[in-house]
Amino acid sequence: MRPLTVAIAGATGLVGGTILRVLRERSFPVGDLRLLATERSAGSWIEWSGDRYRVQIATPEAFAGADVVFFAVGTGASRVLVPLAVERGALAVDKSNAYRMDPAVPLVVPEVNAHAIAGHTGIIASPNCTTIQCVVALKPLAEAFGLARVYFASYQAVSGSGRSGMTELEQQNQALVRGEQPQPSFYPRRIAGNVIPQIDSFAEDGYTGEEQKMIAETRKILELPDLPVAATCVRVPVPVSHAVAVFVETERPVTRDDARACLAAGGGIRLVDDPAHGVYPTPQDAAGRDEVLVGRIRAVPGMPRTLEMWVVADNLRKGAATNAVQIAECALGVEGAASGGGRA
Amino acid sequence: MRPLTVAIAGATGLVGGTILRVLRERSFPVGDLRLLATERSAGSWIEWSGDRYRVQIATPEAFAGADVVFFAVGTGASRVLVPLAVERGALAVDKSNAYRMDPAVPLVVPEVNAHAIAGHTGIIASPNCTTIQCVVALKPLAEAFGLARVYFASYQAVSGSGRSGMTELEQQNQALVRGEQPQPSFYPRRIAGNVIPQIDSFAEDGYTGEEQKMIAETRKILELPDLPVAATCVRVPVPVSHAVAVFVETERPVTRDDARACLAAGGGIRLVDDPAHGVYPTPQDAAGRDEVLVGRIRAVPGMPRTLEMWVVADNLRKGAATNAVQIAECALGVEGAASGGGRA
Repeated sequence: MRPLTVAIAGATGLVGGTILRVLRERSFPVGDLRLLATERSAGSWIEWSGDRYRVQIATPEAFAGADVVFFAVGTGASRVLVPLAVERGALAVDKSNAYRMDPAVPLVVPEVNAHAIAGHTGIIASPNCTTIQCVVALKPLAEAFGLARVYFASYQAVSGSGRSGMTELEQQNQALVRGEQPQPSFYPRRIAGNVIPQIDSFAEDGYTGEEQKMIAETRKILELPDLPVAATCVRVPVPVSHAVAVFVETERPVTRDDARACLAAGGGIRLVDDPAHGVYPTPQDAAGRDEVLVGRIRAVPGMPRTLEMWVVADNLRKGAATNAVQIAECALGVEGAASGGGRA
Repeated sequence: MRPLTVAIAGATGLVGGTILRVLRERSFPVGDLRLLATERSAGSWIEWSGDRYRVQIATPEAFAGADVVFFAVGTGASRVLVPLAVERGALAVDKSNAYRMDPAVPLVVPEVNAHAIAGHTGIIASPNCTTIQCVVALKPLAEAFGLARVYFASYQAVSGSGRSGMTELEQQNQALVRGEQPQPSFYPRRIAGNVIPQIDSFAEDGYTGEEQKMIAETRKILELPDLPVAATCVRVPVPVSHAVAVFVETERPVTRDDARACLAAGGGIRLVDDPAHGVYPTPQDAAGRDEVLVGRIRAVPGMPRTLEMWVVADNLRKGAATNAVQIAECALGVEGAASGGGRA
């Protein structure tokens, strides 16, 4: 395969940096590499695969001739920049919220709905980090048992807010260890030694943007537009990896062994479920990995069509960078490295 | 009312110390006060209301003549000690798991089922901390709309494990700030910067003891023995106060305003729910308070008989000490201080 011209918008951010790492790990066929950022970060240098790259401003010209542009920027920046890349013939893989619910844009988790890529017209959206890991776990259950209702309660890491979230948690932890009472700055409430049931802003009906995304994106990716889904999204003082307690009401009866076998065979899933030996996933276990770790699988006693499970994944990797690179591999016919890489 | 002879078994523990504080705050009519502990802690001195008390070993004789004994000890110790107190004519208020599911023992949260106290034969059990706050929030909904199904996902503080949990979190946080990678000692996995989906040990069906307690105790206290309940219980790196994301399927349709009005009128509840102004409860807000804080009340769009809410309470106070003292007040006809005390 010919080397590709690859650009990363937001290359100096947490997700941008992880995309660079994932491209190297998966031997993505990078020819020309363009690292783009805002004026503030432009001019700095980043080393990648033995070469040094100067970070450029994300101007329209920077997209000319690019085969693929990974957008790891905010929703506002994506709205401005993505069309500029598409006009210049590049494939835009966008991890922001800008285009996810656009009916003309595929919203893709390759293990779940790679087929949707075929319909793209220049933009492919990568879902919200928390949604990605949940749909990976729900897809095989949906196929085998049908989904009637789904409830999510999330435990989300601060790196989901980028460097500002990581820094706030670190500084507040340091202050607590010094015996001080740190005041919130980036988050609306103290995050160290606390949990915050607010991610993104509130809508009229009391749902946060993050919860609305989880609900709408889950339906779109699973192609179940009427699936009843509810979600409570909570920030927890963890640096990396989101965990989600998932309650699933299925259409057909399901035993715990059925569910376990079904999940073990699911794409992108690593079963970590042997409670008798104390084996279950925590955020610390998922950090640095590409798989979605699923454990604590239970059939609820007295509720024959109801399961509980605990779904954990690295929000910077499968929740963002790895999923974006997998999308590009599928869309451009690049043979991806075996999944399950990273720290494995 | 004549002053009562009060004993506290486990007086040197986190909950025992909180019972002492709550007795003073509520002006409980304490005459003779006996502070009991194991041999290890006996001999130390505790100051209370201007007097010093020597901690004694919890021998059978220590219960003679006591009107009420608060048991803030483990399940094993309660099994041995509680009958000794009851034989000597004392009322035993037990916060352990030893007698909670005994059909002859009332399991009481005074705002929910104070009437059950009437049937006691010497022992009244106080529920699991996480259960207490959830049934306080569920009771008014059960009466107004009926309960069809309930799902709990908990975010539980380390003080739920007593001093060992607090110490482990503090030491691991200090180690992380020093740049070290702390190894777990008390908890099965690292708790600092992580969350652990295991509280208590695992049963054959994959449920933890904590989850089984939440399910069984909720049914007993609400007097709904067949209520479908599922739970995932998770330890989070928070010192004090448990939070629970609660999903409620009701028997009758319910709007968000209905639910809010109903909860606002519920006993022991403080509504903290104004998302438009960033108002919702976090564990930090509940620490030191006696009320159960309820916020993030939502009617799930497209699911007319389904609510979500976020329930937070101080696990040492309402989750343990305050509930035990309230039980004693009800059982002994003591006029309790206005509820909602503590830090209020």
